[in-house]
Amino acid sequence: MALDPLTLGAVQLRDLLASGALSAEAVTAACLKRIAQTEPQLHAWAYLDPEYALAQARALDAWRKKGASIGPLHGVPVGIKDIIDTARMPTEYGSPITKGRVPDKDAQLVARLRAAGAVIIGKTVTTEFAFMQPSASRNPHDPGHSPGGSSSGSAVAVASGQVPLAVGTQTGGSVIRPASYCGTVGFKPTYGLIGRTGVLAQSPFLDTVGVFARSVEDAALLAEVLAGHDPQDAASAPGPVPRLSKAAAEAPPLPPLLAVLRLPGAEPVMTAALDELAAALGDSAHPVDLPPGFAGAAAIRMQINQAEMAKCLFPYERRGRAFLSDEIREAIDAGNQIRARDYIAALDWRPVLNAAVDELLSRCDAILCAAAPGPAPPISENHTGSSAMNGIWTLCGTPAITLPLMADETGLPLGVQLVGRRGEDARLLRVAHWLSNHMARTPETTERETA
Amino acid sequence: MALDPLTLGAVQLRDLLASGALSAEAVTAACLKRIAQTEPQLHAWAYLDPEYALAQARALDAWRKKGASIGPLHGVPVGIKDIIDTARMPTEYGSPITKGRVPDKDAQLVARLRAAGAVIIGKTVTTEFAFMQPSASRNPHDPGHSPGGSSSGSAVAVASGQVPLAVGTQTGGSVIRPASYCGTVGFKPTYGLIGRTGVLAQSPFLDTVGVFARSVEDAALLAEVLAGHDPQDAASAPGPVPRLSKAAAEAPPLPPLLAVLRLPGAEPVMTAALDELAAALGDSAHPVDLPPGFAGAAAIRMQINQAEMAKCLFPYERRGRAFLSDEIREAIDAGNQIRARDYIAALDWRPVLNAAVDELLSRCDAILCAAAPGPAPPISENHTGSSAMNGIWTLCGTPAITLPLMADETGLPLGVQLVGRRGEDARLLRVAHWLSNHMARTPETTERETA
Repeated sequence: MALDPLTLGAVQLRDLLASGALSAEAVTAACLKRIAQTEPQLHAWAYLDPEYALAQARALDAWRKKGASIGPLHGVPVGIKDIIDTARMPTEYGSPITKGRVPDKDAQLVARLRAAGAVIIGKTVTTEFAFMQPSASRNPHDPGHSPGGSSSGSAVAVASGQVPLAVGTQTGGSVIRPASYCGTVGFKPTYGLIGRTGVLAQSPFLDTVGVFARSVEDAALLAEVLAGHDPQDAASAPGPVPRLSKAAAEAPPLPPLLAVLRLPGAEPVMTAALDELAAALGDSAHPVDLPPGFAGAAAIRMQINQAEMAKCLFPYERRGRAFLSDEIREAIDAGNQIRARDYIAALDWRPVLNAAVDELLSRCDAILCAAAPGPAPPISENHTGSSAMNGIWTLCGTPAITLPLMADETGLPLGVQLVGRRGEDARLLRVAHWLSNHMARTPETTERETA
Repeated sequence: MALDPLTLGAVQLRDLLASGALSAEAVTAACLKRIAQTEPQLHAWAYLDPEYALAQARALDAWRKKGASIGPLHGVPVGIKDIIDTARMPTEYGSPITKGRVPDKDAQLVARLRAAGAVIIGKTVTTEFAFMQPSASRNPHDPGHSPGGSSSGSAVAVASGQVPLAVGTQTGGSVIRPASYCGTVGFKPTYGLIGRTGVLAQSPFLDTVGVFARSVEDAALLAEVLAGHDPQDAASAPGPVPRLSKAAAEAPPLPPLLAVLRLPGAEPVMTAALDELAAALGDSAHPVDLPPGFAGAAAIRMQINQAEMAKCLFPYERRGRAFLSDEIREAIDAGNQIRARDYIAALDWRPVLNAAVDELLSRCDAILCAAAPGPAPPISENHTGSSAMNGIWTLCGTPAITLPLMADETGLPLGVQLVGRRGEDARLLRVAHWLSNHMARTPETTERETA
């Protein structure tokens, strides 16, 4: 068999697995082999049980061979951020306080994955309680650099080719930033699209489940499987699941118009790269200004995040404050000082900001901006980077996707972020697919052309 | 014409108006006459424009005479609490700070009323910002006693026969308690059933629109018109409108079982009356205990209310703190001390308490308890009474109704409260209708028999 599963995207794998040209066991074994080779440098995994992964794959192969109907991810290995519950598999939140924690139930999104036939290959490294203290994970492009956080393991695992797909979460910039740093596609859908029952609540008004993949189509495939009503999640509303995969594979009816936004805080290398990209896009891109209301948005987001962390992490703080990082302790202490009145007033900003975003997006198809301030910071700086390019969109709850279209002079990736209107995830993916195809030299297109 | 509109209930009025046996003008004129006679003693109205009310009535009569289809409240006068917006009609919140405030848009519930053909007869007196400072309204049973609050004018207007129907709101006990004190039916539906767009937000997690009427059927008629999805109200969810009128007019399939709950804080006269009622109900009633989790519920409710008031009333405090009552100032000051973390934690109590209520209601049809601690307090005590019998149900968001079935030795009314499961408003009204009919000597039954 000449097919090397590691060179294939999730959509291709899914098709080959469905046809029987590849077995789930072979795909899983290839992933496990790659993990064994690269994990000592990368530290992407918090929990991995190769035997259990292979057992799932064999069961899925047996099922398919019976001629039984199969799900949209049948046999495709998926990594799960270690703040998302997996039944009888440890879910330790990246903290010594919760070491040994083993849930007895799958998160709703993990149950959806199993129903879709995915191989739950293992748990990816998260920063402590999905906050800002760096994890042990390393950037696959240069182990001297951070992979970003908090979904560090998921970004690393996908970017390094260990698995085709992984799930993460974003409260500030924890999906888009690590994807940008690691040079892969990261997609944070509209707030509430993916249910969070069984996912650690760090800041429920902000926490958003997102996905990592190596192409727009692959990200759409995974997100569509995860999307859908979660009756126990207050952010989730009943409604049809958007047809993300279909949208991500089709051409827009007209060439998209992109509004290029220069967010304050970007480094010169990122600004220069974005300018070059905008120039290459010609008439398809035009510059816009950040609406005035956004000036205080980052502070508003932080206030909500700290107040909710102080409440949500209180049980862990109580059990072991000494085992929390300074970073989390400071955030909790700041959160404890926030008045209820100010917190409630902060929540009012979401509709106000979205009114401005909607107005902007009434004149274009998506906002184009930096996915991170610059390339991944060196490990020696001991931080996972700033969420200045991401937090405002998390606060808005708008869908956002990053594409690995650019790099700095040393080869470290620079992500391009596209932001769409709330609820218009499918449209955003279609625009992202167009941009991906339009930029000839993207790693993604290259990969696909050589595959 | 021998028919005196003032002796008729809303359902009867509606039928006679639809058939042409009564004109909207005659009904409105009769109400206005009654108001003119009794208002100097009762102070139920914050705004009344008799000419505008009659103009609405005449237009409705002309419409009906054309043979055009008419709504379920065609020609029925309705009083509106003065914290609910009415287009081009003052809505002053009972505060000097907002004196002269005239909204340019109807609240969604007022728009529903107009669409149903109701005559928006005027605005009923509210306590200051729907909080606890007594208004000028007086109890129709004895002007030396309080009518309760905060929906004082609505309770007085209906109980005194000025109007057949009125709308109020409850954040602590502001519908059920004044209805109990004034001797009329008050119904607070499930939290979120009636949309609040255009209603003053005092404490959005608790604020609930309710209705006043002189019978269960009349209350159901009004509530069904008001119910329905309000896309701009976060508490409102899409769904079919429950058929409240139908339920309120039909007999339960089996005789209902009532769980008699003695809430702490009831006065001996109320406890004795409830005991007598329970004895009269025989096998239909059995005593139960308040679930343990409820011990702290009143404090939790107050914490949420104060924190949200501090936020929601901030613009008014800023414009005129000196014009706020001590009562409100103290509540706002207390609210300003509440930490975001404690507020967010308090919100978690609703599902916990409802789990206990649901368990209790799995073994009976409704909870029966006092609607207020006792009869209306004397005006000299300068308070509107305690919400100890009501606030816990407002926190739960469960539907509650009070029936004027009892009185103290001086003739002051004592309400009986029935509480049902969230979302089961129709069932609660059916049980209330049954109880109303079952108790032979209720004012309601007497009225209907003599009508």
